Order: sequence, then structure tokens, then C-alpha cells
Amino acid sequence: MTSSDKPDKAAEKTTATGTSPAPDARAEHTGVAAQDWAAAAADPQYRAAVVDLLGALAYGELAAFERLAEDAKLAPTLADKAELAKMASAEFHHFERLRDRLTEIGEEPTSAMEPFVAALDGFHKQTAPSDWLEGLVKAYVGDSIASDFYREVAARLDSDTRGLVLAVLDDTGHATFAVEKVRAAIDADPRVGGRLALWARRLMGEALSQSQRVVADRDALSTMLVGGVADGFDLAEVGRMFSRITEAHTKRMAALGLAA
Amino acid sequence: MTSSDKPDKAAEKTTATGTSPAPDARAEHTGVAAQDWAAAAADPQYRAAVVDLLGALAYGELAAFERLAEDAKLAPTLADKAELAKMASAEFHHFERLRDRLTEIGEEPTSAMEPFVAALDGFHKQTAPSDWLEGLVKAYVGDSIASDFYREVAARLDSDTRGLVLAVLDDTGHATFAVEKVRAAIDADPRVGGRLALWARRLMGEALSQSQRVVADRDALSTMLVGGVADGFDLAEVGRMFSRITEAHTKRMAALGLAA
Repeated sequence: MTSSDKPDKAAEKTTATGTSPAPDARAEHTGVAAQDWAAAAADPQYRAAVVDLLGALAYGELAAFERLAEDAKLAPTLADKAELAKMASAEFHHFERLRDRLTEIGEEPTSAMEPFVAALDGFHKQTAPSDWLEGLVKAYVGDSIASDFYREVAARLDSDTRGLVLAVLDDTGHATFAVEKVRAAIDADPRVGGRLALWARRLMGEALSQSQRVVADRDALSTMLVGGVADGFDLAEVGRMFSRITEAHTKRMAALGLAA
Repeated sequence: MTSSDKPDKAAEKTTATGTSPAPDARAEHTGVAAQDWAAAAADPQYRAAVVDLLGALAYGELAAFERLAEDAKLAPTLADKAELAKMASAEFHHFERLRDRLTEIGEEPTSAMEPFVAALDGFHKQTAPSDWLEGLVKAYVGDSIASDFYREVAARLDSDTRGLVLAVLDDTGHATFAVEKVRAAIDADPRVGGRLALWARRLMGEALSQSQRVVADRDALSTMLVGGVADGFDLAEVGRMFSRITEAHTKRMAALGLAA
């Protein structure tokens, strides 16, 4: 048994030290969120849901790598190209961590990713940017929404999985770069703003439609989202979660100078 | 010895310590190769040649990143895709080191790369692989030739530049991966070998034609190659170098099961 496991002991310890400052803030969490992977994964349905989550996230990173590398071709300058290549490379390293984690918990990474290939490829196919600015808006909007979603889910995960998910969602520098470039373009030609606002709405619509496809297909993952497994997560809460994500999207679009 | 060489002080020092054991094996080298960057760069022509070399190598890595990311789309499996993405990411990190070095010696990386964009983009445009195997052969052949060439040049560089050039030429794992996959494909269908042999010849031809373009355009770099600056490098030696590179290519093709 590794140091990360220790099911019962860790649970007792959490209870015993619940009010004292915990380095990993475990005291804030209840239910599954208060457990580590070894304890939480004893429930096969929870385990299946996490494998789905890691598989979706891993393929998402690999697809993001490809998309950003592709968008790098549209870059107007060599410095911009290098910036996109850097983001792509960061996504690849996130992919590596997720893939290695799947292997570590005894899962075949490819099998875990396969169920999400169609939805993610479908999203990228339906939203291929036609120019550099559309690519930047997509990188920014897409990653922000995905990041919001996984951050919401992360709060309901066991401590080990949560740590990994939060680590790979670390800002890869998209935001600042994209916001600066897009704002400058709108300043230079305000009509660009209208076109990009439409584009951002299309991205959001396509993301929601592909998410529904995944939710319909993946029982374990969906059950976790609506509270069957992960603690304190009911249907009303899912609704509120989507509201929060949409709201954050609207705020980001405003920050970008776009009406959402 | 030309103006190429160092300030007199450095020359004296090199001579004085020429036979004593040097930790960086400097004793094996003579002329510019026995100097560090600070001494060698005092010659503006040598400096310009190195800036060209680093610029060409940096853009080469960035272009290789793009090409490998693009080829990743052709991958038949997710595992193959991840393997190509890993190579692409490795090339990007090489690019970062070269770019940072250009900045460190007070050069604008973009300006240093610009002169080589047309030739490298031209090469990639003329040799876009039409399938996964052609992509693998290109990654293998292209990187091997480039690597041979830079290794030959490296031996004539100042110690600091040489160290960097050799470090970024470190195997990124292309060879083993590509050789295994291509051999398996030829075993499964020997006709594939004929097609890929033709392809490899086309790659070599296009690489030579683009190299000539660069040599014709870049005075400082060419002068270094034919011995005007870097010590002990004359026209006959350049001829021998190209022979060695072509010979190594032929051997590699045979190892791959292809007639070169």
C-alpha cells in the first residue's frame, strides 16, 4: 500500500483533525471528496466515473494540442507562432500526466480515451477557426469553459484525483495572450467584435451540444454528475453549475470586448 | 589563420594550455573550436555565422514541431498519435533553448529566424506526406540528415555554441519508433518498400535543393562552411562532409529495408 492509499486511517485522521489547518485543505471536503483514491475507488461506480473523467480530460488535452499546433499555422508572426506552439506543448504535458495516472491506476489509457474521441473530434470539426483571431477566441473560450467545468467537478472528487485535475487545469498562458491580441484587433477595427461575438456564441452552442452527447452515452460519468456517486451533487446543483459556467462565459466575453 | 580567430590574448591562452587536460575536452579542438563564445564572437563574421546557424536551427525546430503535430493527425491509433505529439513537444523545447540563446547573446530571435523561413517552409511544402508511413519516413530521414549536418558543423564551433547545438540534436525518439513502424509495414506488404524508397529519394533531393538555396543566400554561414571563418574547413572538406551525410543516409535506408 502506498502512502497515497491508507483508506481507513486517512478517513479517521481527517475526522480527528477536522478543525485544525490541513495542508491539503481536506477538512473542507465531505463524502467522497474527503477520501483519497484508494478509499473512494472501492466503489466500482465511482471508479468507472473517474476513469471516464480522466479519459475525457486526457483526450481533451491531446485534441487541444493538435488544435493549437494547427492554429499556430495561422499566426501572423513568428513570435505568435512560437506562443501557440508553447501552449500546445503545455497541453501535451498535461496529457502525459493524465495518461500516466490512468496507467498508474491500472487502466489502459487508450481504452479510457476512446469513448470521448467522437465528441471532441466532432466539436473541433464543427468549430475549425477560419482565421487567427477565431483561433485565439476558440482557445480562450474553449479552455475557459472546460476549465470551469472540471474545476466544478474537481470539488466533488477524491483528494488524489482532485489534485491531479486541478494541476492539469493550471493556466497555460492562453488567457492573457488571447485577451491582449483580440482586444487589440477589436480596437483596430470594431467590426471584428461583432463577428467574433457570433463566433463565441457558436462555440458555446457546439460545446453544449457535444457535452449532451457525452452525458447521454456515459452512464457512470453522468451518474456522478447528478449525485448518484459523488456526494452532494444533485440535478438542481448541476443546473446551477451550468448557470455559473454560462455566467462566467458572459463575463469573459465582456472582458474581451464582445457581447455574449 | 584568419581574422576569424580570436583576440590575441585568447590565442596565447589556448596555445599555453593546449596540451593540458581540459574538463570540456577543449584540448581536442583547435582554432575557433578551442575557444568559448566570448572569445570567438569577437570576430563579427564568426558571430554572424553563428547567429545564422542558431536562427536556422531554431526555425527548423519550430517547423519540425508543426510538421510532427500535423502528422499526428494521420496516426492510425491514439497511442501513435501520442507518440508523434511527444516528438513534436520535444522539438518545441529545443526551439525554446535556441531562441533563449539568441536572446542571451543579444539577438532578436525572430530576425535571426526570418532568413530561413522560406527555405524550410518550401521544403515542408514540397514534401507533405500523403499518409502515416510517408510522415514517419520523413521524420526519420529529415531529422537524421539535419542531425548529421549540424553534428559536422558543431565540431567547428566555439565550445559554448557547440554544447548547445549538440544538446538540441539529442535523439527525440524518432529513430526507434519510425524504424519499427516502417519495417513492420514493409514486412506486411513488401510493395510498400518500393514506394517509400522513392519517397526517401525525393526527400533527399528536396533537402539538397533547399540547402543550396540557403548557402547561396547567406554569406556569413556559407563562408564559415567553406573555411573562411571556422578553422580547418575547406571546400574539399565540405565535399567530404556531404559524402559522409549521403553515405549515412544510404545506410539508414538499408536499415529501414529500403533501397536508397
